[in-house]
Amino acid sequence: MAAYASAAGLQPIIFIPHGNISYGKLAQALEYGARTLQVEANFDQILALVRRLAERIGIYLLNSINPFRIEGQKTIMAEMLDQRDWNPPEWVVLPGGNLGNTAAFGKALRELKELGLIGRLPRLAVIQAEGAAPFCELVRETQKLRGRAKARLQAVGRPETLATAIKIGDPVSWPKALHEVMVSEGVAEKVTEQEIADAKAVIGRCGIGCEPASAATLAGIRKLRAAGVMRADADVVAVLTGHVLKDPDYIYRYHTGALEDPHGKRLESTFGNQPVVVPNDAAEIERVLG
Amino acid sequence: MAAYASAAGLQPIIFIPHGNISYGKLAQALEYGARTLQVEANFDQILALVRRLAERIGIYLLNSINPFRIEGQKTIMAEMLDQRDWNPPEWVVLPGGNLGNTAAFGKALRELKELGLIGRLPRLAVIQAEGAAPFCELVRETQKLRGRAKARLQAVGRPETLATAIKIGDPVSWPKALHEVMVSEGVAEKVTEQEIADAKAVIGRCGIGCEPASAATLAGIRKLRAAGVMRADADVVAVLTGHVLKDPDYIYRYHTGALEDPHGKRLESTFGNQPVVVPNDAAEIERVLG
Repeated sequence: MAAYASAAGLQPIIFIPHGNISYGKLAQALEYGARTLQVEANFDQILALVRRLAERIGIYLLNSINPFRIEGQKTIMAEMLDQRDWNPPEWVVLPGGNLGNTAAFGKALRELKELGLIGRLPRLAVIQAEGAAPFCELVRETQKLRGRAKARLQAVGRPETLATAIKIGDPVSWPKALHEVMVSEGVAEKVTEQEIADAKAVIGRCGIGCEPASAATLAGIRKLRAAGVMRADADVVAVLTGHVLKDPDYIYRYHTGALEDPHGKRLESTFGNQPVVVPNDAAEIERVLG
Repeated sequence: MAAYASAAGLQPIIFIPHGNISYGKLAQALEYGARTLQVEANFDQILALVRRLAERIGIYLLNSINPFRIEGQKTIMAEMLDQRDWNPPEWVVLPGGNLGNTAAFGKALRELKELGLIGRLPRLAVIQAEGAAPFCELVRETQKLRGRAKARLQAVGRPETLATAIKIGDPVSWPKALHEVMVSEGVAEKVTEQEIADAKAVIGRCGIGCEPASAATLAGIRKLRAAGVMRADADVVAVLTGHVLKDPDYIYRYHTGALEDPHGKRLESTFGNQPVVVPNDAAEIERVLG
C-alpha cells in the first residue's frame, strides 16, 4: 500500500500494533514514506480505531473491509488459473487472518465458474494459527448446525501467534469468508506454532521461502492429509502470501534454536540450519565441510 | 544461489564475512538450506580461500569469476532493452563492487549491437562507495594514460562502506569491467555514505525501494549530472541490484536518525521518517495526524 500510494503521489498512513509487527514490514512502511503510527493496541482494536478515523478525518481505508481491495485480491486466483491453463485444482489452501483473501478467492472462483472459464469450484481450505483461530471454530460450529441455525463468529480477545500477519482475533471479513467456504465445500483447520515453524523451514529448503503466516498452509495440508480430508494424490494449490524477508528475525531464531512461542516456550529447531563461524584457514574449513 | 541450488536438489554452501553481511542475506542463506560458513575474513580474503577450496575439494564456484555467471547476468540488459522496445538509453548506471555486472552488461550490450538488435552502445557509469573505490581510481588512471600504458588495479586493503554488497577492495572482474567501460566511453564515480543513504531514501519514497549498494546509482547520477557529465535531459537507466528488505536494519536506523558510517560518525537522516508511538485513542491520533 505504502509503495503504490507514494508512487502515485498520495500520502500513505500506516497504523501498526506497537511491538507486534515484523521488522521487515516496519522497515518497508518507513522506507516507502508512510506516516507510520505504532498504536498501543492490537490489530482488532486498531481496525476499529481506523474505521472511526476514516469517517471523521477523511482517510481512505485500504483494509480488506474495502470492497475494492477484495476485487483486487481476486486477481490472485485468475493468475493462478492462467498459469495452470484454466485447469482448477481440487483444493486452494490459504492462511486465514482477517479473511480478505478467503472472501476474494471464493468470489473470484465462483465468478470464473459462472463465466465458464473453469468447469468446477476448487474447495477452499483456510488455515489459522491455534492462538488466533476464531474462523476455524466458526466453520466447525456452522457444520454442526447443518443449516438449522446461523453461527456467529466468537472473537478471540487476545490472539497469539508468531505469525504476525494472521494474529487477528476478530476478522472483519468473516461473513463473506464463511459463505465462500460453505459454497466451495471447504474446510478450516488450525495448526500449532511448531507446525508453522517447521513447515516454513521445509518451504525454505525447497528454494521458495515465505513469511510465517504463509507456512500455515503447508502445515494445514499435512494435517488435513493425515486426517484423510485430502487424498495423497489430490491436486492442491497452496498460496504463500508474504515474502521470506518480511521476518528475518524469525528465520535466524528458528535456525539457531532460539525461537520461542508467544508463551516463552522454546520451539524445536527441527530443520535447523545453524551458521558456523570458521577462521580464515582453508585446511580448517575443509575439515568443517568434510 | 542457495534457493536455486536447493530447488535443484544440490547442496548450496555459502561463505560470508563474519559480522559483515546484511541480516536479510544471512536469513535467506539459512532458510534456503545452505551450509553457511561465517568466515573471519573480508570478502576479498574469502574469495581467495574459496578459489583454493574449489580446486581442492570440488566445490563449484558461483562467484562472478565463473564465466557462466557473467552469461546469466547479461540477460538483465536484454530484459531492460526488451522493456524499452530495443531503444537503448544513453547511459546505464550500476553499482560497482566485484564488477561482475559491469563485465556482463558491457558484453551483453556489445553483442546485442553486433546482432543488430540495438543501433548504438549506451555508456556505462559504474558507481562505487568512497571507502571501496579501487575501480574508480583505475578508470581515472587509465583515462589519464590515454593508451600510452596500461594501468593496473590497486586493491583497497580495508574496504569500508555500509553498502555491504559493494564492500569489496579487490574486485575479481576488473580487467573485463575496465574493457567494457572503455569500449562504451563510460565513466566511474564514487559517492559518500551520506549520498548513498539519502539516495536510498529517495528511491524508497518513489515507491521502489532497494538495498544500500543499489542506491549508489542514484547518488552517482546526481554527481555526474552536477559535474556536467550527464545532461539534464539524458536518457538514463539505473540498475537496482538488491531488494529493499535485504537490509531492514539500515532502513530503521536511517529513518530514526541512528545510522552511523563505518567510522562511527552519525549520518544525517535527511529524508528521515520516524515512526510515532500513539495510544489507543482516536482523538489523540487525530491530533497527531492533524
